[in-house]
Amino acid sequence: MYRTHTCGELRIENVNETVTLSGWVQKARDLGGMTFVDLRDRYGITQFVFNMETNAELCEQARKLGREFVVAITGKVAERESKNSKMSTGDVEIIAEKLEVLSKSALPPFTIEDDTDGGDELRMKYRYLDLRRSCVRENLVMRHKMGIEVRNYLDQLNFIETETPVLIKSTPEGARDFIVPSRMNPGEFYALPQSPQVFKQLLMISGFDRYYQIVKCFRDEDLRADRQPEFTQIDCEMAFVEQDDILNTFEGLTKNLFKKLKNVDIDYDFPRMDYATAMEKYGSDKPDIRFGMEFVDLSVIAKGNDFKVFDEAEYIGAVCAEGCASYTRKQLDKLTDFVKRPQIGAKGLVYVKYNEDGSFKSSVDKFYSAEDLQKWSEACNAKPGDLILILVGDKKSTLSQLCELRLEMGTQLGLRDNNVFKPMWVVDFPLLEWDEDSQRYHAMHHPFTSPKAEDFHMLETEPGKVRANAYDLVINGVEIGGGSIRIHDTDLQAQMFKHLGFTDEEAKAQFGFLMDAFQYGAPPHGGIAFGFDRLASLFAGIESIRDVIAFPKNNSGRDVMIDSPSTIADEQMVELGLDYRKE
Amino acid sequence: MYRTHTCGELRIENVNETVTLSGWVQKARDLGGMTFVDLRDRYGITQFVFNMETNAELCEQARKLGREFVVAITGKVAERESKNSKMSTGDVEIIAEKLEVLSKSALPPFTIEDDTDGGDELRMKYRYLDLRRSCVRENLVMRHKMGIEVRNYLDQLNFIETETPVLIKSTPEGARDFIVPSRMNPGEFYALPQSPQVFKQLLMISGFDRYYQIVKCFRDEDLRADRQPEFTQIDCEMAFVEQDDILNTFEGLTKNLFKKLKNVDIDYDFPRMDYATAMEKYGSDKPDIRFGMEFVDLSVIAKGNDFKVFDEAEYIGAVCAEGCASYTRKQLDKLTDFVKRPQIGAKGLVYVKYNEDGSFKSSVDKFYSAEDLQKWSEACNAKPGDLILILVGDKKSTLSQLCELRLEMGTQLGLRDNNVFKPMWVVDFPLLEWDEDSQRYHAMHHPFTSPKAEDFHMLETEPGKVRANAYDLVINGVEIGGGSIRIHDTDLQAQMFKHLGFTDEEAKAQFGFLMDAFQYGAPPHGGIAFGFDRLASLFAGIESIRDVIAFPKNNSGRDVMIDSPSTIADEQMVELGLDYRKE
Repeated sequence: MYRTHTCGELRIENVNETVTLSGWVQKARDLGGMTFVDLRDRYGITQFVFNMETNAELCEQARKLGREFVVAITGKVAERESKNSKMSTGDVEIIAEKLEVLSKSALPPFTIEDDTDGGDELRMKYRYLDLRRSCVRENLVMRHKMGIEVRNYLDQLNFIETETPVLIKSTPEGARDFIVPSRMNPGEFYALPQSPQVFKQLLMISGFDRYYQIVKCFRDEDLRADRQPEFTQIDCEMAFVEQDDILNTFEGLTKNLFKKLKNVDIDYDFPRMDYATAMEKYGSDKPDIRFGMEFVDLSVIAKGNDFKVFDEAEYIGAVCAEGCASYTRKQLDKLTDFVKRPQIGAKGLVYVKYNEDGSFKSSVDKFYSAEDLQKWSEACNAKPGDLILILVGDKKSTLSQLCELRLEMGTQLGLRDNNVFKPMWVVDFPLLEWDEDSQRYHAMHHPFTSPKAEDFHMLETEPGKVRANAYDLVINGVEIGGGSIRIHDTDLQAQMFKHLGFTDEEAKAQFGFLMDAFQYGAPPHGGIAFGFDRLASLFAGIESIRDVIAFPKNNSGRDVMIDSPSTIADEQMVELGLDYRKE
Repeated sequence: MYRTHTCGELRIENVNETVTLSGWVQKARDLGGMTFVDLRDRYGITQFVFNMETNAELCEQARKLGREFVVAITGKVAERESKNSKMSTGDVEIIAEKLEVLSKSALPPFTIEDDTDGGDELRMKYRYLDLRRSCVRENLVMRHKMGIEVRNYLDQLNFIETETPVLIKSTPEGARDFIVPSRMNPGEFYALPQSPQVFKQLLMISGFDRYYQIVKCFRDEDLRADRQPEFTQIDCEMAFVEQDDILNTFEGLTKNLFKKLKNVDIDYDFPRMDYATAMEKYGSDKPDIRFGMEFVDLSVIAKGNDFKVFDEAEYIGAVCAEGCASYTRKQLDKLTDFVKRPQIGAKGLVYVKYNEDGSFKSSVDKFYSAEDLQKWSEACNAKPGDLILILVGDKKSTLSQLCELRLEMGTQLGLRDNNVFKPMWVVDFPLLEWDEDSQRYHAMHHPFTSPKAEDFHMLETEPGKVRANAYDLVINGVEIGGGSIRIHDTDLQAQMFKHLGFTDEEAKAQFGFLMDAFQYGAPPHGGIAFGFDRLASLFAGIESIRDVIAFPKNNSGRDVMIDSPSTIADEQMVELGLDYRKE
């Protein structure tokens, strides 16, 4: 037997018991005639004592132990003289009687401590060692608990977890598919699912009524910090529901997760904001509402003073940063540089300081009087001591730039605390969005999303104005989930495909089976999908989803630990009827 | 609102309530001046009554409903005159007041009844309709519950469910990989995992201590009824354990599943049988022990009577079929045909009838006296009325033929009841097996399996005799799970790779990261993987795993519903740097 207890288990009650523990040597140190060994496993750390006087041979053995050696040690539990209240096992130590080295360790390439000396790349290459660090492992334990809690909650509500296939069919709509050549059907390919969308709708047509699945999905996209080629979704669908049913059900799930995983009670209804308002007030369909600083539209009141930049702008937008009138020239220049960064793209930044003494100082004093600025500050609800920041230009770009500026100010003012959670629903998304590249409308959500009944008459005449029964769950400025009420009518679905520029043949080739299925009695239905990785990183209080994935890939889609992707044997290519393209 | 209740919910207590239900029209029938509509959803069936006298217009509408129309009906709950005790809602019916057709249905290609008129192919093409049949859906509900129970059980035991990557690295060992071309790394490929074997071992090296995952795995093999290109495993691994710890832990899990899902108490320890005995007694490493009929080796006592076929045979094996002495000539001929089928391959079948009157009649009476046959029957523990069936030949083939014959007799005698469950462990598998094609030893389990310490000395001299710390869970003749204690020592692992014919370079290229990981302190560890689909089909009492998979593929790996795999756009091939091989 390798152990009688784990390294996190022994307490003062166990004194005088003879125990065996197994684990990794966290550290060993000699002190006088003694050697102290801290033994670590997933459950904790326990201190062992080897005494040169009473057992020289054993103590000599202990002195040969290196960090990360795997050992089994037997001994008697004793009360510690100097207790360590920081460790759960800190009241006791074990007087070692027997030591067995189960496995030696080379010197690890970085220290196995929460505060490690290993850089990102090294830790990814030796991810199995990085995972030994308790701060990393705890994130994955939390992720595990998240899965358990999601399942228990949905199980109680009669949802059936149903596995849908991973080897499916490639469709050109949406992001790029990963494809899998079929050996048994040469020249043909499976695709990996970007989501189980079609299958969950089929399950509703099958009468499954309530479906969910925690499921891997795949997108062959260029990667960013919060994207991975494979990611996990909580995928859900319900029949005989309207939008409110979905929102209420999954608001319940979300509150339950906050309670169970963070011990946070959210005892109010999540605010619901329509897309248009979110764009107008926050320049984003995923506003961070941990703080206010909503946009103020100065387009009307700030024009007409011969300041060309303002007079010619489609939109003049402001945010009011509380207590920032004291910002220095240097700080303001830094903010200007921030908004002028290519990825943000503003041409410049106008500021108005509403000084504590009631006076104004702005970068446009040449054009505007104190009375003008007073009006602006009233529009912005500014108080003495506040700083008004203004961006101008075409409305769409300016809203988006102002969003970045607002978030930056929120960060600078410490208003984006990772331990504060502000969930909300964004609703009434547009059904379609115009794509400049292909010069046609694309489904904003996906082609199965239903238009709002009251907007339906505009589908022919003003397609861009039609709103959808679509919604996102946004927490702290992160899109955690999104979904829609689906079309459940063949004719309407056919009409949608037409609007999205599909020919009848294309629609039939790609979604024929779904259109067929609609003919046999489809219930009204809708659903939602949560980003499991994003939700986990939110709960873990970290930015990147990589840290809540056991074996993530880097920005080039590589797993640097296993060195994948890699070349394959020629015979594999032959079997699949494939060749490398010569060009 | 589409419904106030489900179709399985209303009881006599609800009488006089006004309710709205939604669902599918199971059937509608006119009787006198009334129309009765049975409305179905996942939860049950409820009867609605439309009355031509009291509301002719509504009744006319109801008469236009076809099978599988989706409707919402509002009405008042009433006590039924003639109650239907077979239905949970059979005490009540609903007097319809309002009817809304939510979605029409074309005539389904087969009837949506447990006893359907649809053939296999049709049901697969319209799988979404097949899934409406409650017998099919119930299997998937059971599968869902299985997942919940597995997770709850392992969660209590401190296992962490950890997701491992789906896009991994191709390795030539084992079955054929499905591969995924990488667009971002042209000329390179991911592979889909045949199992998360390496990752779960890495997690043990990471100190996760107890890991599990219910996970999709992939094998590009030619398919049979119980194989699918994608299948689901309960994948588990534990650190600091010996074989007994694994067996006890997962015996507990298995018993818990029997209790929770089948209400079957298994109050005894699962029998453990070594591989050699299983082969000797049942000709199989997955014996069906719902019945006895163990093999009897007659090789010694049945030789020496100048019957060349016996005298020259390496092995003479018998099974005793209780009470079958009355088998007719025709029945015996049929059995002979059975064993001579090419997939079984016996040359012939010898029988000995031990008649009720104590006399013997055999197909080898020319060579053997009644005394001889008496001896055989004693060896076989046969009683008057029994039938002894004998096969001869080289030992390996004959054992395997005898296995098929035994199972056939078990079936004929009704000894293989699907409601009887006989779990067992098969242990002490050989470490290696000789492969004629490649003229080298292959790992029987996989290359990370540890040899038994006491057999280790034979690894050089008699590799075929070395037993492994490997085990299978077998229930009713089906291999439900299998695993092993792993090698946790770099040197031993390197030695194993050498024995398996890997050059140092090959081993390094394929498993270098695992060998590297072993250098940093690997704990003793082992694990097991259960076939989730097989376990589900066992609990569902059906033969094929296809019926417990929502959207299975056929024998050519095709999903005939979505018509996948399929061709892809040329631009996809270009992006991936691939071409079709011209040959």
